[in-house]
Amino acid sequence: MSDTHSVGIVAPQTAHFSEPLALKCGAVLPEYDLVYETYGTLNAEKSNAVLICHALSGTHHVAGKYREDDKYPGWWDNMIGPGKPLDTNRFFVIGVNNLGGCAGSTGPKTINPATGKPWGSGFPIVTVEDWVTSQARLADSLGIKQFAAIVGGSLGGMQALQWTLSYPDRVKNALVIAAAPNLTAQNMAFNEVARQAIITDPEFHDGDYYEHGVVPRRGLRIARMLGHITYLSDDAMGAKFGRKLKHGEVKYSFDVEFEMESYLRYQGDKFAGEFDANTYLRMTRALDYFDPAADFGGDLSAALKRAKADFLVVSFTSDWRFSPARSREIVKALLDNELAVTYAELEAAHGHDAFLMPDKHYHDVVRAYLENL
Amino acid sequence: MSDTHSVGIVAPQTAHFSEPLALKCGAVLPEYDLVYETYGTLNAEKSNAVLICHALSGTHHVAGKYREDDKYPGWWDNMIGPGKPLDTNRFFVIGVNNLGGCAGSTGPKTINPATGKPWGSGFPIVTVEDWVTSQARLADSLGIKQFAAIVGGSLGGMQALQWTLSYPDRVKNALVIAAAPNLTAQNMAFNEVARQAIITDPEFHDGDYYEHGVVPRRGLRIARMLGHITYLSDDAMGAKFGRKLKHGEVKYSFDVEFEMESYLRYQGDKFAGEFDANTYLRMTRALDYFDPAADFGGDLSAALKRAKADFLVVSFTSDWRFSPARSREIVKALLDNELAVTYAELEAAHGHDAFLMPDKHYHDVVRAYLENL
Repeated sequence: MSDTHSVGIVAPQTAHFSEPLALKCGAVLPEYDLVYETYGTLNAEKSNAVLICHALSGTHHVAGKYREDDKYPGWWDNMIGPGKPLDTNRFFVIGVNNLGGCAGSTGPKTINPATGKPWGSGFPIVTVEDWVTSQARLADSLGIKQFAAIVGGSLGGMQALQWTLSYPDRVKNALVIAAAPNLTAQNMAFNEVARQAIITDPEFHDGDYYEHGVVPRRGLRIARMLGHITYLSDDAMGAKFGRKLKHGEVKYSFDVEFEMESYLRYQGDKFAGEFDANTYLRMTRALDYFDPAADFGGDLSAALKRAKADFLVVSFTSDWRFSPARSREIVKALLDNELAVTYAELEAAHGHDAFLMPDKHYHDVVRAYLENL
Repeated sequence: MSDTHSVGIVAPQTAHFSEPLALKCGAVLPEYDLVYETYGTLNAEKSNAVLICHALSGTHHVAGKYREDDKYPGWWDNMIGPGKPLDTNRFFVIGVNNLGGCAGSTGPKTINPATGKPWGSGFPIVTVEDWVTSQARLADSLGIKQFAAIVGGSLGGMQALQWTLSYPDRVKNALVIAAAPNLTAQNMAFNEVARQAIITDPEFHDGDYYEHGVVPRRGLRIARMLGHITYLSDDAMGAKFGRKLKHGEVKYSFDVEFEMESYLRYQGDKFAGEFDANTYLRMTRALDYFDPAADFGGDLSAALKRAKADFLVVSFTSDWRFSPARSREIVKALLDNELAVTYAELEAAHGHDAFLMPDKHYHDVVRAYLENL
């Protein structure tokens, strides 16, 4: 991809909200910041805005670079830019860091003005619904009454779906990618093991590790290693690593023997040095709690009755975390409500991670859908 | 099952071996104990012996109880006893705790006579091949030249398979249940996360925690919780727990919210209080290293050329850890060598754990195979 297809150098902005936000858990955030980025130009009618909702470890830095020599661009740079599937020559794209995050928006590591100390354990548990509410306030602040599209993969897809329920009139199109209408018991079990690894790390200090000058690195590292297993398919891991030995021969030790172990440790170490453990706990809980059908006796079709948007639902064949069957549940419920749904079940080798990959077929599907708006 | 089908009250025995054992890793165990149990009676020809090989956390205590008021019998009591599929009226059944274990056989928590301290980190890494060699010595000590059958599920099935390669003339039948010819990258990845949880537990002390009067409970607990996810299928977890809430309503906390979390924590806590972390590390490494085809350029058919036994291979449809496809690889390689193979791919809801469950169809298959010997 040549530079002409990049949004180029970008900069984050911060919006401060002083109106208290009542959260689903019962707590009230007296005030908060949301950090966000925008790419492209909002048209005079303010009708070309697209909101990108991030997944578990994502941020507002969706496309472009902060400096020319940044090693990596934003996390969905392959999808977003001039001439890319989500074309910034046409759309005004917004990336926002979710509440409870650790990339600039108010979260557990933010100083709580009431105490002068980091929120830590006191930061409330936030839900997908809360994120959508806070994102709507950001839209208000930018004068955007209705989004041309709201787009997300994985947990981001859940937010896109929730938008169509919380604010049916404010979403023309929802792109729900590699998502699910709720977590299965197995999905939740992986989250629970990850959280327990963090919470039982002696350096977690009940969530108030900031004041102890430590972070629960060990637990966060385990959580991330585990996460990576669920992001890749068995086949993808087989193709990428198989049983390849790191040193060409077996050493009979607990050090790295197989290439795959090296990969997992690297990913775990990297993440543990960057991400906030309290945020990780809250992101996984938001996943656990998301279940729009719960208030409708488990009837997803009834739950989605409020939606008015048109939908593109995308799933990937090798995604065993949020399998195509889960996307089909969403599609069926939307069709039960006679909504316009395009569904693409894409052959892909990368498992859940496929939603981040620059696969041509996938990108063509997104491009075609958006070109037809 | 009435008491008349139980082997009744049993007692473990210990065999001491003073002949040094050269291990695959290069280390030599100067002497060692194997603890074992037997059920039924060895016939005069010593031709009715059946060896049970245990899986990751199994022991020699396969059937019966030690005391009438034991809460649970041995781990495969539903399979083994008078009139049960593996009928102790007919067979002399041996259960043995593997080397490196923590239930009585020489392992990391055993006192190393050379130092007067527990072996700890100094206990060598043992392999499936080493276990088979040590089990053969136990057979020698009992005067058993050939087993009527060697039986195992999961890692135990790998041992049964290895027996047919290490000692082709000493195994008439191998029952290889819910096993695989080696681990996939994903299988090994789960092992690696489990091991890293243990090794990075501050109370691991590089494996010499015994002398510190602590055990790496936190790490072992995480390892076991993770293990349980892989033992159950997504469907089985869904059927057993689904999204059922522990308290009937959402509490918005990181305490137990869902029934499934309660189950995982219970299993993790229980195991962490009983099992030895150093053993866990070694059992998972034995799984990682098992790969009979490795010395044959990955050609499993070539690797199994030495085998002479008849085989019963059993897999379970919902087992995603060692899927039916992995068992079929074994079956194909055996058939390539024109060996007698019975293969049963059983419908089962319990995932990998199905091999321990008293499913009638499964038991009938094992019973019928053994009756036809």
